[in-house]
Amino acid sequence: MVIGAVEPIVDGGRFPIKRVSGQSVSVRAVVFTEGHDRLRAVLRHRAQGEAEWTEVEMSSLPNDRFEATFHVGPPGSHEYEVEAWVDSFATWRSGLDKKVDAGVDVSVELLEGAGLVEAAARRASAAGQDSERRWLDDRVRSLRPPQEPGRRIATAQSEDLARAVERHPDRSNAARMERALSVQVERERAGTGAWYEFFPRSTDAGSDTHGTFRDGETRLEYVARMGFDVVYLPPIHPIGRTHRKGRNNATTAEAGDPGSPWAIGSREGGHKSIHPELGTFEDFDRFVARARDLGIEIALDVAFQCSPDHPYVREHPQWFRRRPDGSIQYAENPPKKYQDIYPLDFECEDWRALWDELASVFFFWIERGVTIFRVDNPHTKPFAFWEWVIREVRGRHPEAVFLAEAFTRPAVMQHLAKAGFSQSYTYFTWRNTKAEIQAYFRELSSSPVSDYMRPNLFANTPDILPEYLQSGRRAAFQVRATLAALLANTWGVYGPPFELCLSRARQGSEDYEDSEKYEIRRWTLDDPWSLAPYLESLNEIRRAHPALREGDGPVFYEVDNRDILAFGRHADAADETIVVVVNLDPHHTQSGWLSLPLDDLGIDGDRPFQAHDLLGGERYLWQGSTNFVELNPERAPAHVFRLRRRVRSENDFDYF
Amino acid sequence: MVIGAVEPIVDGGRFPIKRVSGQSVSVRAVVFTEGHDRLRAVLRHRAQGEAEWTEVEMSSLPNDRFEATFHVGPPGSHEYEVEAWVDSFATWRSGLDKKVDAGVDVSVELLEGAGLVEAAARRASAAGQDSERRWLDDRVRSLRPPQEPGRRIATAQSEDLARAVERHPDRSNAARMERALSVQVERERAGTGAWYEFFPRSTDAGSDTHGTFRDGETRLEYVARMGFDVVYLPPIHPIGRTHRKGRNNATTAEAGDPGSPWAIGSREGGHKSIHPELGTFEDFDRFVARARDLGIEIALDVAFQCSPDHPYVREHPQWFRRRPDGSIQYAENPPKKYQDIYPLDFECEDWRALWDELASVFFFWIERGVTIFRVDNPHTKPFAFWEWVIREVRGRHPEAVFLAEAFTRPAVMQHLAKAGFSQSYTYFTWRNTKAEIQAYFRELSSSPVSDYMRPNLFANTPDILPEYLQSGRRAAFQVRATLAALLANTWGVYGPPFELCLSRARQGSEDYEDSEKYEIRRWTLDDPWSLAPYLESLNEIRRAHPALREGDGPVFYEVDNRDILAFGRHADAADETIVVVVNLDPHHTQSGWLSLPLDDLGIDGDRPFQAHDLLGGERYLWQGSTNFVELNPERAPAHVFRLRRRVRSENDFDYF
Repeated sequence: MVIGAVEPIVDGGRFPIKRVSGQSVSVRAVVFTEGHDRLRAVLRHRAQGEAEWTEVEMSSLPNDRFEATFHVGPPGSHEYEVEAWVDSFATWRSGLDKKVDAGVDVSVELLEGAGLVEAAARRASAAGQDSERRWLDDRVRSLRPPQEPGRRIATAQSEDLARAVERHPDRSNAARMERALSVQVERERAGTGAWYEFFPRSTDAGSDTHGTFRDGETRLEYVARMGFDVVYLPPIHPIGRTHRKGRNNATTAEAGDPGSPWAIGSREGGHKSIHPELGTFEDFDRFVARARDLGIEIALDVAFQCSPDHPYVREHPQWFRRRPDGSIQYAENPPKKYQDIYPLDFECEDWRALWDELASVFFFWIERGVTIFRVDNPHTKPFAFWEWVIREVRGRHPEAVFLAEAFTRPAVMQHLAKAGFSQSYTYFTWRNTKAEIQAYFRELSSSPVSDYMRPNLFANTPDILPEYLQSGRRAAFQVRATLAALLANTWGVYGPPFELCLSRARQGSEDYEDSEKYEIRRWTLDDPWSLAPYLESLNEIRRAHPALREGDGPVFYEVDNRDILAFGRHADAADETIVVVVNLDPHHTQSGWLSLPLDDLGIDGDRPFQAHDLLGGERYLWQGSTNFVELNPERAPAHVFRLRRRVRSENDFDYF
Repeated sequence: MVIGAVEPIVDGGRFPIKRVSGQSVSVRAVVFTEGHDRLRAVLRHRAQGEAEWTEVEMSSLPNDRFEATFHVGPPGSHEYEVEAWVDSFATWRSGLDKKVDAGVDVSVELLEGAGLVEAAARRASAAGQDSERRWLDDRVRSLRPPQEPGRRIATAQSEDLARAVERHPDRSNAARMERALSVQVERERAGTGAWYEFFPRSTDAGSDTHGTFRDGETRLEYVARMGFDVVYLPPIHPIGRTHRKGRNNATTAEAGDPGSPWAIGSREGGHKSIHPELGTFEDFDRFVARARDLGIEIALDVAFQCSPDHPYVREHPQWFRRRPDGSIQYAENPPKKYQDIYPLDFECEDWRALWDELASVFFFWIERGVTIFRVDNPHTKPFAFWEWVIREVRGRHPEAVFLAEAFTRPAVMQHLAKAGFSQSYTYFTWRNTKAEIQAYFRELSSSPVSDYMRPNLFANTPDILPEYLQSGRRAAFQVRATLAALLANTWGVYGPPFELCLSRARQGSEDYEDSEKYEIRRWTLDDPWSLAPYLESLNEIRRAHPALREGDGPVFYEVDNRDILAFGRHADAADETIVVVVNLDPHHTQSGWLSLPLDDLGIDGDRPFQAHDLLGGERYLWQGSTNFVELNPERAPAHVFRLRRRVRSENDFDYF
């Protein structure tokens, strides 16, 4: 018996697939043995720690393929496997039917069948099902002489008998996969959400002074109005003074420069402390509670690195690497040297204590009500550490969510996802043309990548003001927000620079001019040009349409214009497909013919149907698979059409 | 350190890939670790039983990919694996270069480098390479004060130093794949050849009497003239009498009917005996020797099943399954019953003795000079048996070649190839249209299938007269022979029915009318319409052009006519591509525009080039990628063009 080509699977079962609670896992396998015997296969699954497996009979498809689906329960680790066996009774029955049809003498075949039923009766008896045993034993007698042949054949071919024997299969020679596969089940927010990043120190509305968590509460209301689910804060810990960077990343800070929040640690504390100018723990708790009241979760930045002033440097000097001159090795990206940052030496002699301490950072903030962590540069720390620490944290807190900020090579980015991160930043920010977007999202949506890596599409970050947005066109920001919000289930922006269409970069770079990373900024949130209402619309549309927040990856449609991208999103849970059409050119009106696969969309090509633009409100009457679209970036660079599956009645008129 | 995505690989390493002696294995892997350290990787390989690995440095490609190639030696089992480590010196050197270029102070970096070189010197010393140690120790002194900075930097950046340290890498933390992968290396005939099947009993030229091996010697000369490499004989063992089948598979035989050779065994013997009417062992040995003199190898049919008269039935009744009425279970394909055939019960209590006996059948014939076996219906016997018996036979006779006649579902066919069969019959016989052929050969040519399954394309067999040939058109036979001979490295026909264009099938079936399976036939080999000269041309062209006998799978080219199929074949060993154009319509002349990827073929699209038809002899002067082709089935249904890579000189004229 061979059980092969089992899917979904990641690296032969070395890593789990991912799902959120309630989602389905459709398991496919190729199961066969020599000859032509009928087989049965079951999909077995259970939550970790459960003694009993739940079994689902697998459907047999052509070419030895079998398939079945189960739904995962609460967050935690689940496992699944396939077991299969030869169904001797069904094999016998199928041969018998053919021989009976051909008028061949089957008296010996009926004796064989009686033997099979007798064995099933014995198994029923062993299982304590005596009435079933008696019923089967009756059938054994009906299958054997002296019963007359017609009666014997009728008994053999009765469906009741087939079902009864099926209930007591002979699984003594069943084969099973070498090892069960696992599913990492997480809560909903691991799989879907709208993120908003802001610097709490830039929230003081009145003056240039340092914003606090108290000030930030007002900002939370602003973010909540736009419909975001998660507010992610850059590090909130005390900032180092030694080698502090000045405005625009200047090597030396002026008096009063606040420094980069990623230079973590000062005499006021490290990763478990709050920067005094932001407020107290009490203020933080209030901030988190206020967010919760507004339907928002706070995500913290976890950057495992230290400023030279971090308490770890004094208390645990063995956690840092020394240079030959005795100094501590600072971070570098040759020829650049970052003397304000000391990397931790994850492979030092005292690594066990270091790793435990770092794990305790997660536990510390979880105690304070934060369970979403955006991890800074995970790709510069050992994979083994992440696999271990995420497992440790999840073991006690299955609700913890981890976002990997790994802007690195594809293999490394994917490996971190395999190692346990719930979500990943992606290359989305640098995929601008139709061909680039199609190729990249086909990759992200295809198995096995889609089984373990969940994209979180940030349209910008404090580190990345993409060239496409540097044009300063409002339409460019609309295009990128639309794509980020609708191409995947999780998206985000770094605001207010995003909605205020901030476009000035430092010469020849993707860094913001006067970046908040190095100074405190003030924002005019009520700017009439602000895209806040547009972001609100996108989040509202996502909220109303499961296809956009928990659907499969995009399916791209043909448009005969290289600047117009069109795609559909669909979720099993909802009976609708959302079709998004975007003009990628923020400068000119573009038009073209859009081809929709009407059959897949459940639309009758011979009758008119209405395409309702959820974004602009317009309704278009279309017919057939090819329809005209035109998008003026000054007015609206995108359509978001809702197409519901046609109601299949006699006199329906497809008005959506 | 992660070593992943290693290719070629079959089922995660559960089964070996296949190669013939002298062929290359190009191994690709993705190798990476956290951060930005430089890595080195080696491909290690050895024949089974060798203590030492041979190492080949792998080339580093973009996106963490590494690649290297090795060539396999004599038949037997070989293994390969990838090992990788962090190259601290190269990492350090790359950072140093950038800092030096940027004019940054590197005095501490030079001390670090000195430490790395010192460690390399210690490793050289441990390896007993004292002069290398001394040389390196000299460099250590040059890297340290009091040497002046310029001298220190020059030493650090010298390529001699880099090469010397590279020779003594620190592999103490090297990572290796969990387990090595294996290659089943076979002799050339496992990978390439032209097969011809005939019934030796139909070789008596004079009368209707039973042909013998002596008669067969003349037939061998006829086959050798056509250029075939292998003659495959249906079973040559004594034929059973009980329930013997008559002509055209009649349930009862008439007196004088010779029976089917696949009903093996009579009182004269079984699988290790020769049917008396074919001759003696001495005659057989002469026949095999005569073939060898003609450059032909004899392949025997191994059909592990018994007629009721087989000695096994009497001597080892425990090897057969009993029915409830005590009779032995005969073969069936419900509702059909084959009472002349008893299957062996491979899972009987006495299976060990049975398996040993069956293995001894192979050894018996290998002793008599036969090492190619065409195995009948392997898919109805346990996979575990084949994996075991092929390993046993190859262990003593690595020259043994096994062809699986598994006309069954794709998964089963593929699994038998994985389990050890050298070659497989395919669905080629039923792939007739352009779309079918393209889809099927793309599947066969793509990894991993191409790494373990070698197609043997039979244009017909005694069991299969395909519908396409039943039209009786000579051109139909030419088309199928051309495709079989040129689409893959191994092909075959069942003759003389093939070259004589025999097209009469039994009503509604693919069985030959008056099949040789049940009677002795006489053949008019000198029929002027015989395709023997055409088959000879095909084999001659194959012999002259490595692309066609040891090349990669076909690459299909575009022709704007659905009845014209075009493909190219290429072998690394030869600097030429053969382009085959076939009119699949045996009834009508077809024409169209053929598009060739000139760049891939090394042809300058701006200059005329000549396409030389190896089959018809014509030469066509073409220019550009699109050229006109027209094929009249009455004259020649195919072109076989030879295109040599352009000689890249100033004044070459591309006359091929």
